[in-house]
Amino acid sequence: MPDHLHNDDLPLRLGVDHHANVIQELLGELHASFSGVREGRVADYIPELAKACPDDFGIVIATSGGRIYEIGDTRKEFTIQSISKPFIYALALKTLSFDFMASKIDVEPSGEAFNAISLDPESGKPRNPMINAGAIAASAQICDADPSGALDRLLDYFESLAGRRLTINEDVYRSEKETGHRNRAIGHLLRNFNIIESDPEPALDLYFRQCAISVTCRDLAVMAATLACQGRNPFTGGQPLSHDITVRVLALMGTCGMYDFAGQWLHDVGIPAKSGVAGGVLAVIPGRLGIATYSPPLDNFGNSVRGVAVCRQLSVGVGLSLFNQYSQADATIRRSYQGSQRKSRRWRSDRELEILTPHRDKVRIIHVQGVLDFAGIEQLASELVLLSNDVRILILDLAHVTECPMESFDLLDRQLCSLEGNGVEILLSRAGRLPLVSKPDWAITDRIDAYEHLDSALEAAEDLLLSWFDPQAAAGDPDRGDDLGEQGFLAPLSEEHRRILVDRMVRRAFVAGDFVIRRGDPGDELFLVRSGSFDIALDIKTGDGQCHSTRLATFGPGLCFGEIGFVAQTPRTAHIIATRPGECWVLHRSDFEALSASHPAVVIALLKALTCDIGAKLSQTSVQLTLMEHY
Amino acid sequence: MPDHLHNDDLPLRLGVDHHANVIQELLGELHASFSGVREGRVADYIPELAKACPDDFGIVIATSGGRIYEIGDTRKEFTIQSISKPFIYALALKTLSFDFMASKIDVEPSGEAFNAISLDPESGKPRNPMINAGAIAASAQICDADPSGALDRLLDYFESLAGRRLTINEDVYRSEKETGHRNRAIGHLLRNFNIIESDPEPALDLYFRQCAISVTCRDLAVMAATLACQGRNPFTGGQPLSHDITVRVLALMGTCGMYDFAGQWLHDVGIPAKSGVAGGVLAVIPGRLGIATYSPPLDNFGNSVRGVAVCRQLSVGVGLSLFNQYSQADATIRRSYQGSQRKSRRWRSDRELEILTPHRDKVRIIHVQGVLDFAGIEQLASELVLLSNDVRILILDLAHVTECPMESFDLLDRQLCSLEGNGVEILLSRAGRLPLVSKPDWAITDRIDAYEHLDSALEAAEDLLLSWFDPQAAAGDPDRGDDLGEQGFLAPLSEEHRRILVDRMVRRAFVAGDFVIRRGDPGDELFLVRSGSFDIALDIKTGDGQCHSTRLATFGPGLCFGEIGFVAQTPRTAHIIATRPGECWVLHRSDFEALSASHPAVVIALLKALTCDIGAKLSQTSVQLTLMEHY
Repeated sequence: MPDHLHNDDLPLRLGVDHHANVIQELLGELHASFSGVREGRVADYIPELAKACPDDFGIVIATSGGRIYEIGDTRKEFTIQSISKPFIYALALKTLSFDFMASKIDVEPSGEAFNAISLDPESGKPRNPMINAGAIAASAQICDADPSGALDRLLDYFESLAGRRLTINEDVYRSEKETGHRNRAIGHLLRNFNIIESDPEPALDLYFRQCAISVTCRDLAVMAATLACQGRNPFTGGQPLSHDITVRVLALMGTCGMYDFAGQWLHDVGIPAKSGVAGGVLAVIPGRLGIATYSPPLDNFGNSVRGVAVCRQLSVGVGLSLFNQYSQADATIRRSYQGSQRKSRRWRSDRELEILTPHRDKVRIIHVQGVLDFAGIEQLASELVLLSNDVRILILDLAHVTECPMESFDLLDRQLCSLEGNGVEILLSRAGRLPLVSKPDWAITDRIDAYEHLDSALEAAEDLLLSWFDPQAAAGDPDRGDDLGEQGFLAPLSEEHRRILVDRMVRRAFVAGDFVIRRGDPGDELFLVRSGSFDIALDIKTGDGQCHSTRLATFGPGLCFGEIGFVAQTPRTAHIIATRPGECWVLHRSDFEALSASHPAVVIALLKALTCDIGAKLSQTSVQLTLMEHY
Repeated sequence: MPDHLHNDDLPLRLGVDHHANVIQELLGELHASFSGVREGRVADYIPELAKACPDDFGIVIATSGGRIYEIGDTRKEFTIQSISKPFIYALALKTLSFDFMASKIDVEPSGEAFNAISLDPESGKPRNPMINAGAIAASAQICDADPSGALDRLLDYFESLAGRRLTINEDVYRSEKETGHRNRAIGHLLRNFNIIESDPEPALDLYFRQCAISVTCRDLAVMAATLACQGRNPFTGGQPLSHDITVRVLALMGTCGMYDFAGQWLHDVGIPAKSGVAGGVLAVIPGRLGIATYSPPLDNFGNSVRGVAVCRQLSVGVGLSLFNQYSQADATIRRSYQGSQRKSRRWRSDRELEILTPHRDKVRIIHVQGVLDFAGIEQLASELVLLSNDVRILILDLAHVTECPMESFDLLDRQLCSLEGNGVEILLSRAGRLPLVSKPDWAITDRIDAYEHLDSALEAAEDLLLSWFDPQAAAGDPDRGDDLGEQGFLAPLSEEHRRILVDRMVRRAFVAGDFVIRRGDPGDELFLVRSGSFDIALDIKTGDGQCHSTRLATFGPGLCFGEIGFVAQTPRTAHIIATRPGECWVLHRSDFEALSASHPAVVIALLKALTCDIGAKLSQTSVQLTLMEHY
């Protein structure tokens, strides 16, 4: 025990409100180690940019889980400049088709500076959308599609990307517009080649405006996180971009994002990124993080010196390269075990247990987790094809699946249907994340049973086994067990003892939904199920802070419940509810107490039966719990 | 129930040996859809290559989990040709330093054909290692480092990559050597620039030999999987390449692997790949899959036509692009819950429970899984910093961590030490995958307790709480409880009943390691613990088919065990072992039976106590099991 934990000061922890976050610390170290860098020059081709403070330096990381880490000048506004390019291209892809855009702009790294007039000599197509020519061509397509609404549309779009309304810096816009002769030349050259099919001036105007959108480092990080999450903004939950478009844009940022620095960039840093001449850098770790930096001094390529340094350090120091992917081997199978290792909460009678026990391993339970992408489906398929020939029922629990893209769901559907064709019954449990709804013709939906709880699926599997291996039990017979002696629980008692007990018990009928016992009731009755089905329901508070009403156990004919409160004379700790119409034999404590005096041997026999019954349940439950830990 | 499952034919499943695997089916469909492609021409610059059959077509996928899917001509040998280049560069990096190699070869996409003499006009450095000039330069460095041993070294290296000994096709080698005038020119030009610092002929000879290494499509897939697993061969377990080198090589394959097709390739396909003029293509999905195809007809870039088509289809059809990474948001936290939701297997006396119950939520249990890379640590850190100020003990279960790279382990170490500095005791459970051993100066190792089982960590946490909140209990007093009346379990009995019982019981002492009960023993004794500690140990067969001896429960002073066999008169189902020296009160069944006749009220009271005791344990265990399902 550390010194500060001596008993005297135990009830208090050291007055810490929040623990330090090591990621935040790392960001602080990054900031400190590069804030002294003095290389680079602030862009000065228009006066507004030259006004930027070269010492300004902010770093923000925004995660796919919707968390933000920031340090330095992360709330200061600057103009987005070329960082608008990937987003404008994405908007053009969204507005028009992939094929149309392919007819307008190539996607080859240019190996030339950002403002090079890098057009294909024959077609006039800009080499890629990350250079000025490509961005002007993309703006023109957006402009042409809706000349009067283009600007509003663009600002709405940037709002959905950044999670807040962005405005245009009018000074920068006017200044760029006045001095943008080279860009104007590019526009008219594109018009000449018919890449722009109408007057290029509105397109150029839109281009100048989009470059003058005012952002903070934090805005850029949220936009980067949106690209990291395949077009879904993890802070707003909106989906400004489709999955397909996001993949294309990230690829372009990977190859053409950092000007003619591109090949070396991908090799050395391996992070899709885009820089702007005002000092911003936006970088994306697909699936994981958005990163943004702001520091105005630029290197010879036009990239922020400190921004490049931060990206390099994140790549080299903490391994954030696109090519640095750790093996996810077999992360998809959360747990996989035989049916004998997991029983449903329905307590079974001795007769049912006798039938079930030799057949339990005909059931296999597999819990799947994470993203069911191609690699995930491959892992699952490889587990499924190795199922023993004895396995007749597969329970697939999907509670921890976070995503199942359409293209891989198709594979899952086929794999399950193929198993089913081989005679394996498939029960899905907690399949809410599967896109079952979105395409109603999946074979899965038609033919495979889906359960809301694993426990229900387990019970259904047991019922299937009973129906296969004991048709009589499956047929059901609500009137059997009229004689208490047939009740499994009292079987160990002699006939005479049973008769003495029966004389003291009353039969009580319930309809589905009846509360047999309510939490807090005095525990003065013992119940033996004659027919029907009874659930112990407990409100359980789980990690998410929510209360879930969960069945702790289910009792059918031959089983007894209510014994703990009855024997301990304590109030009931849970509700017991009839889930089907049924009857119980009920023993009241006053009769039990009277019996203790008049027929102690009967009471001893009853208590022994109770001890054995609860003891067996405790053994089973303890083993289940232990097994759960091993998976 | 489907038709074929009627009861008659139940015991048999339809004679299927293995279920069809949908990934294998997909491969078959890919093969079928491209085997009809007739474009492209077989390379014919040397006669041996011209002999290749244009119809040969094989596809292999090798997974990071060590599984292989193959279809078509996957076992036919052909020469590796340029696919050797990334591996030769990697060998050069392995043999020499990164800095040295950077002085010899650039890493920029050349935008030129594979055999272009693409050297920097000033330094003479080849543009990248994926063109002939770069590969000859790399071979020369390997050759220079060990002129006589280079070839053996190279073949050993390829053996570790492919998992089998590869040989050189002597015909191809001689033919390439005889006709390789252009490559010879490149070699001498490199000598001229002093990129090659000695006679270029041995380097050229090594180059011609390495291009003539004979491989199958399957070999290439294993080599690709080795790159996918950061240099670890998932089939042999060997580590031919370091993590750092593999990342570099994949980046190069991404930008320069498919000749001047590179930018478009990364944009359209997004898979690091390398092709060879004999018809092979090797492609890597980092962290996931190696892919290889063999089909000799080449397109104008020198890439196999069908190979390119397969890669394109895998990228577009099933989403295997580098830029298509699904959000792994918060996949690292497997479960996280409060201490009140999970108790150790040590059954606690009523007195201990009274102390523990109000303080249990001072413990937090977090189960972590998968790869603890930067994003994983970030997720964990964000969970840890939100710990309530009440939390005084953190149990971090790492059983499902698959990997923890050094650079992120450093962050984990810092995060945990920072928590500890704030007064949180940290108990690690099942931390085997942490690189604790490799760097003994981690703060974690010194200051934080590590447990082999979660259960032991839970018990340690409870013991800590007891030591903090009830120093008397913590001090321990082996001689307390001399009077049976103080034993928690019999507390409900009247003093007279206890006295009657004590008269029938004997005290028995055990040393640590003693078997108190052996599985199979007759159940004729009931034990009440006076002092010491006793474990129920069960051999549990888990999913991996292994038997694990696991403790099902532990009993300390005041608790009773052995009751189920005793009451049910059945043989013991598990061992009970003394883990510390101690004593029990023992009641033999003959005395119990005698008591039933002479003092039924005592027996009834004892059985009631047993029922309550087991009932309470059953409730707790059932709730635990239910909670486990919710996390």
